[in-house]
Amino acid sequence: MQFIDGGVTAPAGFTANGVMCKIKESSTKNDLALVFSERMCNAAGVFTQNKVQAESVKVTKKHISDGKAQAVIANSGNANACTGKQGAETALRMAALAAGVLGIQPEDVVVYSTGVIGKQLPVEKIEKNIQALKDGLSKEGHKEARTAIMTTDTHFKECAVETVIGGKTVRIGAMAKGSGMIHINMGTMLCVVTTDCAVSSLMLEKALRRSVAGTFNCVSVDGDTSTNDSLTVLANGMAGNPEITCEGEDFELFYEALNAVNMQMAKKIAGDGEGATKLIECTVSGAKDVETARGLAKAVIGSSLAKAAIFGSDANFGRFLCAMGYSGFDFTPEKTSITFESSENSMRAGATDFIGPQTGKASRVKVFENGVPLDFDEAAAKKVLQEAEVRILIECRDGTACGTAWGCDLTYDYVKINGDYRT
Amino acid sequence: MQFIDGGVTAPAGFTANGVMCKIKESSTKNDLALVFSERMCNAAGVFTQNKVQAESVKVTKKHISDGKAQAVIANSGNANACTGKQGAETALRMAALAAGVLGIQPEDVVVYSTGVIGKQLPVEKIEKNIQALKDGLSKEGHKEARTAIMTTDTHFKECAVETVIGGKTVRIGAMAKGSGMIHINMGTMLCVVTTDCAVSSLMLEKALRRSVAGTFNCVSVDGDTSTNDSLTVLANGMAGNPEITCEGEDFELFYEALNAVNMQMAKKIAGDGEGATKLIECTVSGAKDVETARGLAKAVIGSSLAKAAIFGSDANFGRFLCAMGYSGFDFTPEKTSITFESSENSMRAGATDFIGPQTGKASRVKVFENGVPLDFDEAAAKKVLQEAEVRILIECRDGTACGTAWGCDLTYDYVKINGDYRT
Repeated sequence: MQFIDGGVTAPAGFTANGVMCKIKESSTKNDLALVFSERMCNAAGVFTQNKVQAESVKVTKKHISDGKAQAVIANSGNANACTGKQGAETALRMAALAAGVLGIQPEDVVVYSTGVIGKQLPVEKIEKNIQALKDGLSKEGHKEARTAIMTTDTHFKECAVETVIGGKTVRIGAMAKGSGMIHINMGTMLCVVTTDCAVSSLMLEKALRRSVAGTFNCVSVDGDTSTNDSLTVLANGMAGNPEITCEGEDFELFYEALNAVNMQMAKKIAGDGEGATKLIECTVSGAKDVETARGLAKAVIGSSLAKAAIFGSDANFGRFLCAMGYSGFDFTPEKTSITFESSENSMRAGATDFIGPQTGKASRVKVFENGVPLDFDEAAAKKVLQEAEVRILIECRDGTACGTAWGCDLTYDYVKINGDYRT
Repeated sequence: MQFIDGGVTAPAGFTANGVMCKIKESSTKNDLALVFSERMCNAAGVFTQNKVQAESVKVTKKHISDGKAQAVIANSGNANACTGKQGAETALRMAALAAGVLGIQPEDVVVYSTGVIGKQLPVEKIEKNIQALKDGLSKEGHKEARTAIMTTDTHFKECAVETVIGGKTVRIGAMAKGSGMIHINMGTMLCVVTTDCAVSSLMLEKALRRSVAGTFNCVSVDGDTSTNDSLTVLANGMAGNPEITCEGEDFELFYEALNAVNMQMAKKIAGDGEGATKLIECTVSGAKDVETARGLAKAVIGSSLAKAAIFGSDANFGRFLCAMGYSGFDFTPEKTSITFESSENSMRAGATDFIGPQTGKASRVKVFENGVPLDFDEAAAKKVLQEAEVRILIECRDGTACGTAWGCDLTYDYVKINGDYRT
């Protein structure tokens, strides 16, 4: 399995495009995207667990309930959430408009929206631009689509991998957006994953749910679970491999590739958190089970105080212990140790082209050991914390399970961006 | 029942003092406080639910487990949390030092610490200053004690009330600190409540727990439940009223007065949140039960996005609905309405001398009604949101229960304060 260039159009049979239709009057970039597969796809999706769900999410859940889909229409600039009956009609209208120009059924269209909550989406702008959007569909179009779904994101997020399954070359591609209101619970802000792998809807769903638990669901920017989180995988089978219909070697190969894509996209979202200057990766080892390890790691990267300390390159590890203590997950403070680690190869520095694991030399400073604060070198710790990627290693000695969560620092710019988002 | 001047020394028989002993080398203010009752007190306390508990909290819980206490020693500048065996000895030493100069048992001393986590507390500095601390005990000493417990607080927090119970004048006084790491769960950062009311330990505990659920436990500054939250009530019985030993009219009078004090202190803590420019009060009405109303209100005032929007005076109510949606509490988005309300009499403007309910004229802007966004007057909403106290009224139409939570906005200064707290 290896990373390759490209995004949602990397797998065979997929094209994409994006146009600007000024859903938000002040917008100066693409804000409407379309992804299309020339063949019908098996489809699976995971969506926000927020009780308040966008109208687009409600429609999409209905449309992929039969395990089939062929296109995705997505807009930024308006979340179409908390918009009542009019919003529900808008979401259906978006599916119908895409289906009309593509010559497919509205029920096979996935609808994504992202942006401000509680404002009606001006669907007439989409209507005016739908033909041009369709006419521009191409293999290169992933470059137009990937920017069309961005809101406060500072760079686009896409990746693709290639692997061999059942003797055939199989590809998986993805694009995502997500920067604020990120505390993912069963899905991400918005992510489209495409593949030409032949895989049944059931096994697609199985692989997706297993992967999401350790990737997207371990990311938090600000503790706010969005109303719009959606992740959909479309598999059109055009790679020609024998269809994966049960667990086994082929399924594991597919899972591995899908998980690599999801992990990559999850880290890109964390590193591009609103206002962020640093990606924070917290790994908890020696926990009693994986759920506990992930839960503790998520509490650390989710703490406002921990995030602010890392923004200030302050080795204030007491805040990590505090966060673990209120997480609701089990650990023994007296057996816990904490180490800071940095890597010269930061993901954030080259976030748009980062495609593999870090290989740079890492430096480490242990600050807390078996429940006791160490008299550590403050200057060395500060240096590690000034890197663009900060890793927090927490050892619990309660068991053998390990889990990682990703987040970002809390900065002046987060406050600035969110103090006046609507205008 | 009425508010009166003063704090912990307002009730008969209590004296207090505070001195500077430079627990944090750079400190330029008092950082060690003592509160003493000339008679033994019935005592009750509530403490942080964080799994990581400060050594001071562990000692205090042990010392008041018999329902008795006579003094409180409290330091700022160091939390004595995550400090292992040495920290445990330090907390015991603090109790022993206070007991020594006061001529009482160490087991009757309550120990409070607040400040940085994960650093050893220099107890020798306390030892050097303990005699001067004791010698300065006086009725006026509440003014020295109330500043000694402050960390990033911008002003001290104290209040006192007077009421008549069983034909006798009874007083309750309090001082508290708390500005960051505030997401109270069964206690507050640090709060000492004193009273001369005669009330049994059991009824004191009962009144305290009932009151805390709707006051301190409904406050959040940053979602971080501290390792040091402690609230202790000392009742010395010197008012001479017939001791309250069961529920009934006297108990209700006492509860009402205690609750007024707790509510006042809780609001002072929220309004003085780290970096805050505004107090946010969110009231949810029409919920199916009180727990749900409070849970929904707490989710709103706890959301980073909602807090940042209010800092920017942006009427971004979609973020409130989003927070309610992920709170885990039940409501029906389609039946929900949201109104902003402000008051000319802000608490924050005169926070140190604010002692009663607001009486200024309020203005209101409804922004969301029965699940549909309203075409509201943005300028009018902005004006309401620019006030120093912002009230969010949320109607659910699911039942008749009501609950309120208090928080503050998320500002540049919060990031600044917490980006470099230790140095």
